[in-house]
Amino acid sequence: MTLDKIYQAAFTLKDVARRTDLIKAPRLNPESDIYLKTENLQVTGSFKVRGAYNKISRLSPEEKKRGVIACSAGNHAQGVALAAAKNGIPALICIPDGAPISKVEATRRYGAEVRLVKGVYDDAYREACRLQKESGAVLIHPFDDEDVIAGQGTIGLEILQQLPDADVVFVPVGGGGLVSGVAYAVKALRPQCRVYGVQAAGAPSMARALRDKKIEPLESVSTFADGIAVKCPGKLTYNLCANYVDGILTVTDDETATAILALMEQHKMVAEGAGAVSVAAAMFGKADIKGKKAVCVVSGGNIDVTILSRVINRGLLKEGRQGRLTIELTDRPGELKEVSAIIADLGGNVISVRHDRSGEETDITACTLSIGIETRNRAHRNEIREAIVKAGYRIIG
Amino acid sequence: MTLDKIYQAAFTLKDVARRTDLIKAPRLNPESDIYLKTENLQVTGSFKVRGAYNKISRLSPEEKKRGVIACSAGNHAQGVALAAAKNGIPALICIPDGAPISKVEATRRYGAEVRLVKGVYDDAYREACRLQKESGAVLIHPFDDEDVIAGQGTIGLEILQQLPDADVVFVPVGGGGLVSGVAYAVKALRPQCRVYGVQAAGAPSMARALRDKKIEPLESVSTFADGIAVKCPGKLTYNLCANYVDGILTVTDDETATAILALMEQHKMVAEGAGAVSVAAAMFGKADIKGKKAVCVVSGGNIDVTILSRVINRGLLKEGRQGRLTIELTDRPGELKEVSAIIADLGGNVISVRHDRSGEETDITACTLSIGIETRNRAHRNEIREAIVKAGYRIIG
Repeated sequence: MTLDKIYQAAFTLKDVARRTDLIKAPRLNPESDIYLKTENLQVTGSFKVRGAYNKISRLSPEEKKRGVIACSAGNHAQGVALAAAKNGIPALICIPDGAPISKVEATRRYGAEVRLVKGVYDDAYREACRLQKESGAVLIHPFDDEDVIAGQGTIGLEILQQLPDADVVFVPVGGGGLVSGVAYAVKALRPQCRVYGVQAAGAPSMARALRDKKIEPLESVSTFADGIAVKCPGKLTYNLCANYVDGILTVTDDETATAILALMEQHKMVAEGAGAVSVAAAMFGKADIKGKKAVCVVSGGNIDVTILSRVINRGLLKEGRQGRLTIELTDRPGELKEVSAIIADLGGNVISVRHDRSGEETDITACTLSIGIETRNRAHRNEIREAIVKAGYRIIG
Repeated sequence: MTLDKIYQAAFTLKDVARRTDLIKAPRLNPESDIYLKTENLQVTGSFKVRGAYNKISRLSPEEKKRGVIACSAGNHAQGVALAAAKNGIPALICIPDGAPISKVEATRRYGAEVRLVKGVYDDAYREACRLQKESGAVLIHPFDDEDVIAGQGTIGLEILQQLPDADVVFVPVGGGGLVSGVAYAVKALRPQCRVYGVQAAGAPSMARALRDKKIEPLESVSTFADGIAVKCPGKLTYNLCANYVDGILTVTDDETATAILALMEQHKMVAEGAGAVSVAAAMFGKADIKGKKAVCVVSGGNIDVTILSRVINRGLLKEGRQGRLTIELTDRPGELKEVSAIIADLGGNVISVRHDRSGEETDITACTLSIGIETRNRAHRNEIREAIVKAGYRIIG
């Protein structure tokens, strides 16, 4: 890798990738100056288009004629699809058939041919390799490729243009392509700036590899941040991380979910799990950033809205803004009406009702009423609970 | 109003308001070039800080000493609070006590004193007027003020700097401050560019006033876009709209909800109802924009996440990605298990179960099972329905 290659990539990308905004985020961690590099607002919804376009632009006319092939269930698929379309060459993308329909549709929309492969990522990857041998198309690796890494590195150049005195940069890590490029560029221009990779605690492949000083695949990964659920780092990326990254931090899925909710409420931005781990690291003080200028690369925003809706609901539950009351009834008429009236009078909002008879743990004459309610906050919810108890009901959950 | 005042406001605002990005939105309406002016990413989460800061900056030292007062349940509160803090003067904001706790907290966080007033907006406004007389503080009107309008007009200047050949601009309209400023600036610099105001169909106060050629308050308003649920336009704004706006369009709440979901999925951005009406107008072709360059001002992103979660769920329902099956059971053992197995085998995901006996419309021995499921799309949901029917169950809803 050379700085030259990254500058060249920046020139190549100037009309394709957006120079995404760097946004100040004063409330995420009051002890430091946090900035967000908003690659979730990049075209295709993630940084991946930078590496893919740089790689494809550098193929020979002969290679371009044969087209490209890639394997991905997410952001890389869309990045390659758009990059191929912009170069006017065909792209075939293998996607495991369990992938969210929204990502398959997005990939098709950029003009790529999609091959749905039965199974998981590994099965799709095998199929891509088989098809590559058949057709002679160029396989675009999602991270372990110098041209791809140079493309992602352009984010490092932009960060230092936008905030020349940055002290710390947090970068999400799956296979390590993004963090390798960013760390190389940042360290070349401003060696005193610290660069940390951030992984999900349930998929710490690069953290493990650097600790053990060898590349070995994890047996399994477990995180809702699917974009960085990578079992094994690359060789190139491992070496670049070992030389240019100051450390790999990990965050839990709950911390990542909290970061996603904070980005929505405070910054009106949608981030995917993989994109928000950097923010979670800054919010939960995984490295010392007190009094420092820290940049979080929000690498992508392609989260399925079904999952996003669950993340919101989880956040509301945690803040006491949504909850469930399970009440024992004696099966007299009018009880549901009475309980509903108590909730309404106190300004609560009933969002669901479940009425069960003959639960195993209740008397034979009793049944349970389970009510989902929206409240202003935890105190408001407690006020409603107390009023129900005062009216003679037993709350059992 | 003069163009001069708007340029002066732009100078005043240069270190306070962000020059928000103009983002291309190719998928919202394939027949035209749509751009988003992202004021939802503005500091305080809406454009309101522009007008409030410009107004407060122009107060005399004597006036500043007395502080400012405002009445708002939303974006104006936060705009005034931040603008006062940046000017180092005290602010008192009257907020109706039913306002979302998140907005009250945000206003306090900018350093303003908050007075919660029992009742609705009108009650809070009366209280603000009473307090203003008592203290002699300057009341900052949310829209009917030339300095406020000039501040909002800076968005018009930025749009033409960012897209000099814009053909159409869509602007959300509540009281009309934003559209007045934007229309004045745009028409002064590029008279051939059309400027449309957009209101919620349930709160068409400015549309009505321009049609009837007189200002009269609506009796009631009904829309979830609370930021533009304004009963009566201002005098200044009415006159500016009559002279510089090409028309006021209206959109339904369902169209606005679809626009919010599209902004999240396609652009990773959170918009509030009031902020998304402009996008809804462009998506649903409320004006002729075929082959034209159209800018939608996304005016704010301060939507309560509880409401956002409902908007997402509504969108998922409409696209067949979430739904509910109500099945008649005969109360034999094992029926729930059997139905669950059918759903799971076909790749559906059960998210809730409701089991009711003795419904009015069922046999005395029968009971109903209501299951909430997540599916890939409408076709997938139908596949599951058919399998359940084939297994001998009756689907009644």
